[in-house]
Amino acid sequence: MRIALINPNTTASMTDTAADAARRVAATGTVILPLTSKMGPVSIEGYYDEALAVPGLLMELAAAEKDGVDAAIIACFDDTGLDAARALAAIPVIGICEAAIATTSFIAQKFSIVTTMGRSRLPIEHLVHRYGASSRCKVRAADIPVLSLEDPSSNARERLRAEIAKALEQDDADAIILGCAGMADLTEQLCQEFQVPVIDGVACAVKQAEALVGLGVRTAKGNAYAAPVRKPYKGLLEGFAPEALC
Amino acid sequence: MRIALINPNTTASMTDTAADAARRVAATGTVILPLTSKMGPVSIEGYYDEALAVPGLLMELAAAEKDGVDAAIIACFDDTGLDAARALAAIPVIGICEAAIATTSFIAQKFSIVTTMGRSRLPIEHLVHRYGASSRCKVRAADIPVLSLEDPSSNARERLRAEIAKALEQDDADAIILGCAGMADLTEQLCQEFQVPVIDGVACAVKQAEALVGLGVRTAKGNAYAAPVRKPYKGLLEGFAPEALC
Amino acid sequence: MRIALINPNTTASMTDTAADAARRVAATGTVILPLTSKMGPVSIEGYYDEALAVPGLLMELAAAEKDGVDAAIIACFDDTGLDAARALAAIPVIGICEAAIATTSFIAQKFSIVTTMGRSRLPIEHLVHRYGASSRCKVRAADIPVLSLEDPSSNARERLRAEIAKALEQDDADAIILGCAGMADLTEQLCQEFQVPVIDGVACAVKQAEALVGLGVRTAKGNAYAAPVRKPYKGLLEGFAPEALC
Amino acid sequence: MRIALINPNTTASMTDTAADAARRVAATGTVILPLTSKMGPVSIEGYYDEALAVPGLLMELAAAEKDGVDAAIIACFDDTGLDAARALAAIPVIGICEAAIATTSFIAQKFSIVTTMGRSRLPIEHLVHRYGASSRCKVRAADIPVLSLEDPSSNARERLRAEIAKALEQDDADAIILGCAGMADLTEQLCQEFQVPVIDGVACAVKQAEALVGLGVRTAKGNAYAAPVRKPYKGLLEGFAPEALC
Amino acid sequence: MRIALINPNTTASMTDTAADAARRVAATGTVILPLTSKMGPVSIEGYYDEALAVPGLLMELAAAEKDGVDAAIIACFDDTGLDAARALAAIPVIGICEAAIATTSFIAQKFSIVTTMGRSRLPIEHLVHRYGASSRCKVRAADIPVLSLEDPSSNARERLRAEIAKALEQDDADAIILGCAGMADLTEQLCQEFQVPVIDGVACAVKQAEALVGLGVRTAKGNAYAAPVRKPYKGLLEGFAPEALC
Amino acid sequence: MRIALINPNTTASMTDTAADAARRVAATGTVILPLTSKMGPVSIEGYYDEALAVPGLLMELAAAEKDGVDAAIIACFDDTGLDAARALAAIPVIGICEAAIATTSFIAQKFSIVTTMGRSRLPIEHLVHRYGASSRCKVRAADIPVLSLEDPSSNARERLRAEIAKALEQDDADAIILGCAGMADLTEQLCQEFQVPVIDGVACAVKQAEALVGLGVRTAKGNAYAAPVRKPYKGLLEGFAPEALC
Repeated sequence: MRIALINPNTTASMTDTAADAARRVAATGTVILPLTSKMGPVSIEGYYDEALAVPGLLMELAAAEKDGVDAAIIACFDDTGLDAARALAAIPVIGICEAAIATTSFIAQKFSIVTTMGRSRLPIEHLVHRYGASSRCKVRAADIPVLSLEDPSSNARERLRAEIAKALEQDDADAIILGCAGMADLTEQLCQEFQVPVIDGVACAVKQAEALVGLGVRTAKGNAYAAPVRKPYKGLLEGFAPEALC
Repeated sequence: MRIALINPNTTASMTDTAADAARRVAATGTVILPLTSKMGPVSIEGYYDEALAVPGLLMELAAAEKDGVDAAIIACFDDTGLDAARALAAIPVIGICEAAIATTSFIAQKFSIVTTMGRSRLPIEHLVHRYGASSRCKVRAADIPVLSLEDPSSNARERLRAEIAKALEQDDADAIILGCAGMADLTEQLCQEFQVPVIDGVACAVKQAEALVGLGVRTAKGNAYAAPVRKPYKGLLEGFAPEALC
Repeated sequence: MRIALINPNTTASMTDTAADAARRVAATGTVILPLTSKMGPVSIEGYYDEALAVPGLLMELAAAEKDGVDAAIIACFDDTGLDAARALAAIPVIGICEAAIATTSFIAQKFSIVTTMGRSRLPIEHLVHRYGASSRCKVRAADIPVLSLEDPSSNARERLRAEIAKALEQDDADAIILGCAGMADLTEQLCQEFQVPVIDGVACAVKQAEALVGLGVRTAKGNAYAAPVRKPYKGLLEGFAPEALC
Repeated sequence: MRIALINPNTTASMTDTAADAARRVAATGTVILPLTSKMGPVSIEGYYDEALAVPGLLMELAAAEKDGVDAAIIACFDDTGLDAARALAAIPVIGICEAAIATTSFIAQKFSIVTTMGRSRLPIEHLVHRYGASSRCKVRAADIPVLSLEDPSSNARERLRAEIAKALEQDDADAIILGCAGMADLTEQLCQEFQVPVIDGVACAVKQAEALVGLGVRTAKGNAYAAPVRKPYKGLLEGFAPEALC
Repeated sequence: MRIALINPNTTASMTDTAADAARRVAATGTVILPLTSKMGPVSIEGYYDEALAVPGLLMELAAAEKDGVDAAIIACFDDTGLDAARALAAIPVIGICEAAIATTSFIAQKFSIVTTMGRSRLPIEHLVHRYGASSRCKVRAADIPVLSLEDPSSNARERLRAEIAKALEQDDADAIILGCAGMADLTEQLCQEFQVPVIDGVACAVKQAEALVGLGVRTAKGNAYAAPVRKPYKGLLEGFAPEALC
Repeated sequence: MRIALINPNTTASMTDTAADAARRVAATGTVILPLTSKMGPVSIEGYYDEALAVPGLLMELAAAEKDGVDAAIIACFDDTGLDAARALAAIPVIGICEAAIATTSFIAQKFSIVTTMGRSRLPIEHLVHRYGASSRCKVRAADIPVLSLEDPSSNARERLRAEIAKALEQDDADAIILGCAGMADLTEQLCQEFQVPVIDGVACAVKQAEALVGLGVRTAKGNAYAAPVRKPYKGLLEGFAPEALC
């Protein structure tokens, strides 16, 4: 089984981090194919970056499907371009926020997502609502820049810990989802420290992709996810015409 | 007052149709500036087309704002790229689906949207849910290709009428929203025929834009709509880096 | 275009304040006709006052419609008698709470209403729910008597400011709606001070009324807003029989 | 125990019908005091009639409370003026729609309300939503004038039966609430015929009033139901000033 | 009228406490028959105890119905086995949480449940949601062991009081429901102290049972509450085969 | 990895059918341990059977966990005793309805569950609501006895097909979940026939169990799923005292 792990931003080092997290949980026989978008923002912070990340993501997805991968993961916690990706591809496509929520719902009645930047909170809250988890999942932001997690001199990890503590105290949360692909390596340590399940979305998405491929199901194409209608695309994005891309 | 009317698909004739609808209701002193996206699909049918239409839309929006327009309208019923547009611009940005629902809510307790193609139904249903109108607004599709509305030999208008009749009978609807910019010229005739308010989104959006400009309010930039963070954009979309575009 | 601005309480000075707010934003050519109810409470604080304010409001509305106005605004933040008014009249009738929520939804994902007295909080919360905005709009009360806003020796404005500050900190609010017609003159100052959009319902209602009249739409009379059935009315309210009033 | 049964319309014969239904189920020792509003419409059909029925209802309620009754029932299925009545009185006030829904919820997972006129359907649907029963209770109208139920030559009863049959087939309903005080005498016969519980709101309200009085609880006055603030009332409604009425 | 009051745990002294509360409010002529489950846990704290308490509860219910009682109450605040009980019996079966919420909704717009142990909070929150009261009822736990309420040396009552005070301050609550059968004797005292209605579920359930019996309605058996299908039961629970039990 | 597949009814042949479905999709290295409850009903049809099936299910679960299995599946579509099972065990416990909904949500925006008997429809609808899928998942019953699926002379399969056809036409469904463990062998054939994904809950549960074990997560025990408090259990169910069972 081959699973494409598509980083929708254009920073290859972030792809590597996500690929590490993916490989740690992948089953024997599952091959993780990390792919980095070739066009768009170097990181995704808010709606504008997200919108501009979609074309590059779709291009990687189309190429990966042609290449015969069995499923694809979108490795950004805002589930960038998920609907468009499902319309484009026939293979299953998994968002990491969606996968984390679905997975955590099997082990906890209430849980909280702790993300990095404040401006990502509302978009993630919209996802939680869309996935039907509003009554069991709150969203918090630790207000830390993503990159600062790597920087030992910053107090980023302390702020993350403080926000997790608040979630456990104030939200009835029995489990924590880390709302950023870049936090995956902290999972085990935080789980030990707080003695509650601490969940990483990339890992969940790998297992959900394996599940769908194992079941032999693919995206239902009957309605909103029907394949794109063939038609001309113009200008800079000419190459995205469905007949060209698929 | 100058209002940019941005057609997010790349077909100029559709821009003209929307501009006609806009000018019919614009107040004295309101100038409608019709703009057609220069890149992306020639029409928007489903999530894939929608995603690829966003960059072209944002480019027109950035240029229009630099040029000093007071507000902008996104002239496609799926409210293409609305969140990204609001993050990018400081001027008010109005979606035509959103404007139609907000406006109709002042005159009817229940109403239905009748759109063209079946595959657009679920995305519009998601918009209705997001705008908080699920309990008062149903969405129907007449299953007609957009362009067939122009073709006198097709039975498109009969199917549209039949679907409106069903909405009035089965949905408790007291008013009808036409869920496609290309239907704007039918408004008056259908209103006469069915003796209920028949609403066009482009017209509503013009009046909502005039309202916001008249009130002197602009998009709240404190949180999810904060201006894009300056950062490099790569590859084909390099030109969309916030410092380049804005 | 002539818009009736009906104050449903019987205090003419409050009508004047609302009329000032209305005229500040009215378009050239829009005439604001301020009307004060001739029967009922001198101010509306809670459900009892509200119920007794409705007959006087309806009487002004009937007279204004006969007189040929194009639309009517109910100038009290509890949207007093809105359903009955829409059943009675064919012209559009706008509530100021409803107008403020619809308008603010175009520029902010989350916002809060700050009203004066605690006992008004729950009724407004019910309106927010009815208008489909529960997930994006919280309601707060500054616990100040309406009239104290005018009194320089009271600390009313400080309490209002304190409550706005809490809304911005605790509610994810990116914009503030002032939940009382008597606060309209504070809009600009508070907007400067807090650097977020601060919205007044009367102003929004004027623009929404202009929008509906400009579109040529009127209340849909097919169902719950059908014209009152002709029938005898008895006792003190005899004069309200539909054949007498309309 | 004395329970005021207030008919908010001004037709005494309807009060008699409701009083019969009430007495059939009243416990030994419960005295039903039927009261007919002295001002307003002769029947309540839609929002306009409802609004004009409230003052007369409140006047009867105030007099009954002064007179020492233990609880009051509002005998119209749109729960006319319920919030204002609860703010005015300290004794428990029960709406018959509210009572029917609360009572039926103890014996059926899903049920439907069958009312008379189409224009009453949406207002009742709003009540169902407010009482938290939207997911278990549908509302249907048999489209019959209230008075025709008394007329043996009309087909009103057949239409009522047909609508009940549809509710049982199409709504998953396991019980039926008759959505009009004037249908109370049909309960037993319809129950026999359809072999499901058929519920009358007046009867339910009597038992709920007995329950509240038996428990010794009264309306909570801390917030939205706080007693009306003393203040002048003007014009025709001068007599409704709280200090005059209470 | 005879009402079975079934304590689903196996501790007879708790049955006595509930029976006292029931008898305090029972109407003249209502006989309370207290019954204690003969199998299962000595107290119900969480989902596991609850599940194991159901068979014993059902056995008492079947015997009571054979014996001719008119209605039954399940005297535990998690409404233990309510659906199974309604499927088994034809007489009305009332849960005390359900009864408390239905009753309190007639006298307060918002209220809070204060229960004992933290682990009971989420199950009660699910009940509140199921009964349609989520928007008007919050659930709090005082984090006290049930039995400590009886112990004068513990600070249990102080913690209960503190939690009630928080509910009144932070939840908009105008009334309090005590979320544990063992608190019934505190009702009057707390009501005096906090000057708001303080409600006990057992008392409410008695009055609701009287109401249903007085109306002559029984559980609707058409669908989810249809009588159990006759079939073999095996092993330890052989005696629960419907033909054996009913 | 060893996964206990617990049939909560006492009919071993049904366990075999579920075990076949489970083994068809289990990964290499996953061992399925089929277990049949030793006490309770031979099949689960409605709330009464469900309640009596829980003790036997919990006994198998406790034994399996002691025996060292890694996860457990409850192989009945009403997710029998799921909350009690999660409180009892530390290993992940998966319901097949829950697993089917979570899995299908990754590949279809809307889908329908088609179950066998009408009386199971409402309980499944409650599960759908609890899992947050009400807006995307409808529940239908083909009104066929479970065992008739095995009988070639019955028209059970035709009725199942007819109900699936209705779901695709009337519910916007793009995928079908078969709402009964006994239908698992029909999946492939129906998928071919209707050309939409047809999903079996047992298969989904196996993959979700593998996912959770692969991730190393276990049930969060902090709150509603905390381990049962040690206490005496009496009578027939004495053996279920937590200290005896766990």
